[in-house]
Amino acid sequence: MLTLVIGNKNLSSWSLRPWLLLRHFGIPFQEVGVLLDTPEFLAQIAPWTPNGRVPALRDGDLMVWDSLAICEYINERYLDGRGWPADIAVRAHARAAVAEMHSGFAALRKQCPMNMRRTPDDYCWDAAADADIARVQQLWRDLRAWHGQGGDFLCGEFGIVDAMFAPVVSRFLSYGVPMDDTAQAFANAIQALPAWQAWRADADAEVEALENPDHARA
Amino acid sequence: MLTLVIGNKNLSSWSLRPWLLLRHFGIPFQEVGVLLDTPEFLAQIAPWTPNGRVPALRDGDLMVWDSLAICEYINERYLDGRGWPADIAVRAHARAAVAEMHSGFAALRKQCPMNMRRTPDDYCWDAAADADIARVQQLWRDLRAWHGQGGDFLCGEFGIVDAMFAPVVSRFLSYGVPMDDTAQAFANAIQALPAWQAWRADADAEVEALENPDHARA
Repeated sequence: MLTLVIGNKNLSSWSLRPWLLLRHFGIPFQEVGVLLDTPEFLAQIAPWTPNGRVPALRDGDLMVWDSLAICEYINERYLDGRGWPADIAVRAHARAAVAEMHSGFAALRKQCPMNMRRTPDDYCWDAAADADIARVQQLWRDLRAWHGQGGDFLCGEFGIVDAMFAPVVSRFLSYGVPMDDTAQAFANAIQALPAWQAWRADADAEVEALENPDHARA
Repeated sequence: MLTLVIGNKNLSSWSLRPWLLLRHFGIPFQEVGVLLDTPEFLAQIAPWTPNGRVPALRDGDLMVWDSLAICEYINERYLDGRGWPADIAVRAHARAAVAEMHSGFAALRKQCPMNMRRTPDDYCWDAAADADIARVQQLWRDLRAWHGQGGDFLCGEFGIVDAMFAPVVSRFLSYGVPMDDTAQAFANAIQALPAWQAWRADADAEVEALENPDHARA
């Protein structure tokens, strides 16, 4: 049985990605939750991953860390490649978008950290976050225009590229980020996923001290 | 013929990665250079990639951007998978290390940007960069101990994981970062690559205004 180690569902954007992928494709796994921003966190996570961060995957003796590497491993080991688009050129674009997400958008991530239960208010982000928001929406428009014909997701059917951007959908919703039509349609498609709804219900039910303002606004 | 669009060889850490991979494996390509930190940069890069950054790959009509996504595409299209370790578990660790590099080490990257011709002096980085340096070297020790038996590189033979960390080797050398035995041996292996030596010779021969202190110390 696979084990996925994740942080609080309300807050842990990077945990959401592989969880969504596993759940959507019906891969059985057990989850181990560790609480972010607690004194126990590092001791709890240490047995699971060498980098001290969530998410972490355990498959028998094999330890895989980092949300992207976990998704690539799941794709190879359990999805027979279905996690990425079948065409090599479409797959290259999906991976480019994912890698751009993985290495960038620092202003958006820092200023609008995932906090699912948050609702929009008068909080303002800066011009650097605005530039990130514009680039994300351009990227989504490009992918949908180039490769979106076969479904409601960025490259048609749901896959890793959508799982990797799902936390951005949460940020856009929680902070009231203005969305163009493509972004709104993508946000609707993500929210319609049973896997998303299950995660969201769990996030709503969390009773731990979640609304740490340092974490939510750091 | 493949085209790889890159920045100044002295400075562009992200360009070095796919260039090294292509060159090491003898994949023919032409290179297009654009100068970082110039008013013309954005106009020059725009036809090649939607994200306005180097590196970018063009293969016929296909545009691939981001150093990691380019390496994954090269691996699939031209290396028949030889860019990653053949064993799925070793490959998972290699991808985990690469994804951790791609999304992290912000302090090291910001405080010690690649500047190949730089030589160590009294410049000091802070504790956050020191933590990044310690984690990188731990990661290299783990990979070598787990998977390094078949060669001098992180998972044995040279591959994408080594190309992705090559810019860190350059940073360590240019800033005089103390290296443990594993890091020193990996740095030696990287420097012994003909592909590295070719890039380095080109960097030494560049005549453009390279030592922009804002870029080199930003």
